[in-house]
Amino acid sequence: SGANAQENKISVDNPNGGIKLTSADKEYQVSINGRIYMDGVHYFDDVTDLSSDVSIDDIRFGTSVRWGKWSAKINVGFGNDEVKIKDAFLRYHHKKNSTFTVGNFFEPFGIEAAESSKNLRFIGASNTTQAMGIGRGVGLGYTYYTQKFYGSTGIFAGTVDNNNKGDQGFSTTSKVAYTPIQNEDFVFQVGGSFTYRKPEANGFNESFNDDDYNRVVEFAAGPEHKFLNATMNGAQSDMRFNFQTLALKGPFMLQAEYTQAKVTRDDDYVSKLMKDGPLYYVTYAWPVKPQDYPDWYGELRDIETKAYYVQAGFLLGDNYKYNSSTAYIKRPKAGAFEFLVRYDHTDLNDIDGTYFNGAYGPADLNAALGGAGNMSIQGGKADTYSLAVNYYLSSNVMFRLNYDYMDVDNQKHPLDKNIGVLKGRIQVNF
Amino acid sequence: SGANAQENKISVDNPNGGIKLTSADKEYQVSINGRIYMDGVHYFDDVTDLSSDVSIDDIRFGTSVRWGKWSAKINVGFGNDEVKIKDAFLRYHHKKNSTFTVGNFFEPFGIEAAESSKNLRFIGASNTTQAMGIGRGVGLGYTYYTQKFYGSTGIFAGTVDNNNKGDQGFSTTSKVAYTPIQNEDFVFQVGGSFTYRKPEANGFNESFNDDDYNRVVEFAAGPEHKFLNATMNGAQSDMRFNFQTLALKGPFMLQAEYTQAKVTRDDDYVSKLMKDGPLYYVTYAWPVKPQDYPDWYGELRDIETKAYYVQAGFLLGDNYKYNSSTAYIKRPKAGAFEFLVRYDHTDLNDIDGTYFNGAYGPADLNAALGGAGNMSIQGGKADTYSLAVNYYLSSNVMFRLNYDYMDVDNQKHPLDKNIGVLKGRIQVNF
Amino acid sequence: SGANAQENKISVDNPNGGIKLTSADKEYQVSINGRIYMDGVHYFDDVTDLSSDVSIDDIRFGTSVRWGKWSAKINVGFGNDEVKIKDAFLRYHHKKNSTFTVGNFFEPFGIEAAESSKNLRFIGASNTTQAMGIGRGVGLGYTYYTQKFYGSTGIFAGTVDNNNKGDQGFSTTSKVAYTPIQNEDFVFQVGGSFTYRKPEANGFNESFNDDDYNRVVEFAAGPEHKFLNATMNGAQSDMRFNFQTLALKGPFMLQAEYTQAKVTRDDDYVSKLMKDGPLYYVTYAWPVKPQDYPDWYGELRDIETKAYYVQAGFLLGDNYKYNSSTAYIKRPKAGAFEFLVRYDHTDLNDIDGTYFNGAYGPADLNAALGGAGNMSIQGGKADTYSLAVNYYLSSNVMFRLNYDYMDVDNQKHPLDKNIGVLKGRIQVNF
Repeated sequence: SGANAQENKISVDNPNGGIKLTSADKEYQVSINGRIYMDGVHYFDDVTDLSSDVSIDDIRFGTSVRWGKWSAKINVGFGNDEVKIKDAFLRYHHKKNSTFTVGNFFEPFGIEAAESSKNLRFIGASNTTQAMGIGRGVGLGYTYYTQKFYGSTGIFAGTVDNNNKGDQGFSTTSKVAYTPIQNEDFVFQVGGSFTYRKPEANGFNESFNDDDYNRVVEFAAGPEHKFLNATMNGAQSDMRFNFQTLALKGPFMLQAEYTQAKVTRDDDYVSKLMKDGPLYYVTYAWPVKPQDYPDWYGELRDIETKAYYVQAGFLLGDNYKYNSSTAYIKRPKAGAFEFLVRYDHTDLNDIDGTYFNGAYGPADLNAALGGAGNMSIQGGKADTYSLAVNYYLSSNVMFRLNYDYMDVDNQKHPLDKNIGVLKGRIQVNF
Repeated sequence: SGANAQENKISVDNPNGGIKLTSADKEYQVSINGRIYMDGVHYFDDVTDLSSDVSIDDIRFGTSVRWGKWSAKINVGFGNDEVKIKDAFLRYHHKKNSTFTVGNFFEPFGIEAAESSKNLRFIGASNTTQAMGIGRGVGLGYTYYTQKFYGSTGIFAGTVDNNNKGDQGFSTTSKVAYTPIQNEDFVFQVGGSFTYRKPEANGFNESFNDDDYNRVVEFAAGPEHKFLNATMNGAQSDMRFNFQTLALKGPFMLQAEYTQAKVTRDDDYVSKLMKDGPLYYVTYAWPVKPQDYPDWYGELRDIETKAYYVQAGFLLGDNYKYNSSTAYIKRPKAGAFEFLVRYDHTDLNDIDGTYFNGAYGPADLNAALGGAGNMSIQGGKADTYSLAVNYYLSSNVMFRLNYDYMDVDNQKHPLDKNIGVLKGRIQVNF
Repeated sequence: SGANAQENKISVDNPNGGIKLTSADKEYQVSINGRIYMDGVHYFDDVTDLSSDVSIDDIRFGTSVRWGKWSAKINVGFGNDEVKIKDAFLRYHHKKNSTFTVGNFFEPFGIEAAESSKNLRFIGASNTTQAMGIGRGVGLGYTYYTQKFYGSTGIFAGTVDNNNKGDQGFSTTSKVAYTPIQNEDFVFQVGGSFTYRKPEANGFNESFNDDDYNRVVEFAAGPEHKFLNATMNGAQSDMRFNFQTLALKGPFMLQAEYTQAKVTRDDDYVSKLMKDGPLYYVTYAWPVKPQDYPDWYGELRDIETKAYYVQAGFLLGDNYKYNSSTAYIKRPKAGAFEFLVRYDHTDLNDIDGTYFNGAYGPADLNAALGGAGNMSIQGGKADTYSLAVNYYLSSNVMFRLNYDYMDVDNQKHPLDKNIGVLKGRIQVNF
């Protein structure tokens, strides 16, 4: 039956600084968890004004419940007074190292994009990951790991945050990581991830009554998403791959990721022509066939963007330790300091045209001066140099300080060259 | 004093798959509960595009606390990243089967409209209940039950979600259910509910400075509320009654509800005339008296709508069992499958005029062609045939699959005839 | 290590009616807390319509965790279906009566503005405190107290709710209270608070590209903030001081606060002139120099406002008791009734000009009739007489009933003279 009471036999446990209650027969476990990120950011801005701010950037309540081989997790964020559903899933623990998950959870792609921000080395992910990483999707996943191998795959059908009109998209995302060397003093991992995605609809255009061309892919990163921001309308498909590597040697670590994306685009030129109705304007010579649109405004060719980062760390007071079940690093012990440097190169441009006066024309300058268009994407690029210091007060509390120096190049903000960002975070997790 | 500590004597209990902590002296009980609904919906749409989607449709945190004869419940939903206050009340347990409740809770009306969605047989309520059921109100209620009798009544003053300007409304709602036959293999119940309501204000019109005519009643149901949607402005009162019946025989069940509503309407013709100021336009022959408005645009006569559904179920692996304290069915045991069929007829039309070109004129076609109006309500009607399969994995988890076939008839969507809706839900409650 | 389990040794504790779990070694404590405020308000309005309403005005979930000398608190409000981050901080307990706090918490200013609404004598704070009290800020604070002395100070950098563009502000706020007399039957306290503030940016004007003149201070109180509402744009600094006194004698109490504020203002006349570009309009005689703006539209002189309240209470069934750690009154015991009266005088006017036709001109009537402006602030003033009855059912539940009679004087609502407000609240805390 569903009701049974045990007196005097409950246990309380605090793994990773959380709180877990376990019933006497071990059949039932509940944990209560929470998070506060207290953030301050000061911008040394160049020409474009950026809003320096302090904030409670993330605050969460969560509960996990486990009944035998099944568990469920609920985690909701309220940062900046906005509700965001985070982990919300049901999991079946087939074996200790083999689980099926259904609900809202991280798509398995790369290191940073599939890891909780509380375990990232810096405050937030690199620009590489912000721009082209994935985050959570609603779907069904399977994860399996051994000491040396970690594999995770899933099918997803869009994000929980998209309440736009139009049909959802779908994606399939997979990650493998292989860690052949795991000595006491040296760990070495390589891995790769791949995702194929049909983007989600981004609203619905009543005049076309069609869900095929209303999809959008956005890549954005960095300060207020101003200098790195590529928006691709009419997206048909979105493919990305990622290579990752990780090396740990005593108190030293090296971590790198390379991500590349290709987005195909198309538009409904036939419907456009029907709507523009050239037959009604018989004296008009243009447009007369669907191909006239791309011929004049530019082809919606495929867009490719790429980015990578490399970061190195040094721990004072502990050594780095590897966790096979997450394919990443364990949290350093209380009292440890961590020092990090990172170089990030994010390039969201795919340009084959001529830019002038705020728009793109064909690469051929004469055609461009004649008024023809070009569908190049100018999302900007940036080289970012970062420093970080972390202090791990306990399993629950850490203090973070970051400085980023960005060398930006974005034609929409031509006067901005160098941006400095000083960030601090007090991070509480339980 | 308010502080007392007991070591080694707390008990943990998991009734209905939840978690309850009880202090040693039994004076104190706290339960923590949560919910996740992971939903997918695919529309086989006709002409009007509908947005197929997966979503976390409901996700909740809740706590209940009990001190002796008093208890309080807090339950907040965050589905689709929006905050919705659900149960939020203080309850006085006068006797085991006699309780007073104050706060936000279900108004006692019918079966489905007063039952948590987690206990409904289908994913969400029938169109009948969606359109004319009530849901939660802020008020004061009393509930009493015996083995055979269940009665609940309350007075309410609007919903917690209405933050529109203008004064709140009020309502009084009552339900009785009588279950004379309760043998081991046969249970039979009949019941009725009634509500009288003054609708809530729906914003405030500065130019009239009056709270009497700014009230609205909306009945809406089905896919995106597109094909069943009646909006009655200037609502003065709203009366509804409901008949319910339930029969259980071993693994079979039959459940039906009939609901009928009558909404009275009025407008402030005197203020309208003052505002239109005919004296300033002395050459105008119209309007010259308040009655000119209804004479030309149509009378705001009473609107009546009605709907009913009948559903039958079959349990594989368990028998249906009756719960006197809720006047409804207990949750089937783990491992059971449930198969259901439903027929729903919802008619939100009350038309006595002539429809053409998107508006209503008088029934007399000549008057209509002269341009006169008619205040008929055309909310659409639909016959809906539904199938459902439920699998009860445990007290905490169930899997649901539904298919609805709607035969719609709505003059605002004249080309839409038949809509198919395939829905799945993974439901986690603890 | 971060994980240790103790069987059979957890304790549960309910201080102040809450729930606290403590691990066997006392190293770990978790409390779960919540709140519901069920409110009804009925306005006896004068000319301007006010929206009578019932609502769940505040509903909260919270968790506190303590590990040794550190603790963290998370508390989020969902009243009226909106998310508001409340207490969200990390605290270091240097000594029992000496704590450092970082995060979002009350700035120490006066009695009412630094006290949880659950402990206020009336439903909500006086108009004095609503208008010129502070509330929570994001910052770093220190608090120290002895039996007779209470001191708290902090530096803050804006509120968690401000998501406007533009840089955050900062403030430093301090409070001292001294309670020299603390006999069994007489307690007497005096205290003072001071804050200096650079207001937060309230959005960003692209054309000026500057964060110095986009700041605003708003003082607002009372019914829908309609009759007491002073908005000061171009705010440069904001200074406020507060005097407080409290006297308790058996079942009697007297409490009073006086608050005064001074806001300095300025505008970017140079940029305005550059933007207006008089050189392009060579025939224009005006403006020709920055000073022309204040000369014609009026000087942005400093604005001073002030307010105070005095309230007296009588407890039936208990005596008032003082709490040194909060410098305020302890919650009366279960079963006590409390009766209160209050007089509040809030004056948000600082006028040196002539009002006519909805705007201010210079005090010199001839200049005013010539069209010149004046930058006086007319926020309105009100004398408010209030009555309250509280019933303390238990440590968790109280019932409140208030009546306010406001004598208002606000040139924006010239016809409104007297407003009555009847409010009830059922307050549940655990």
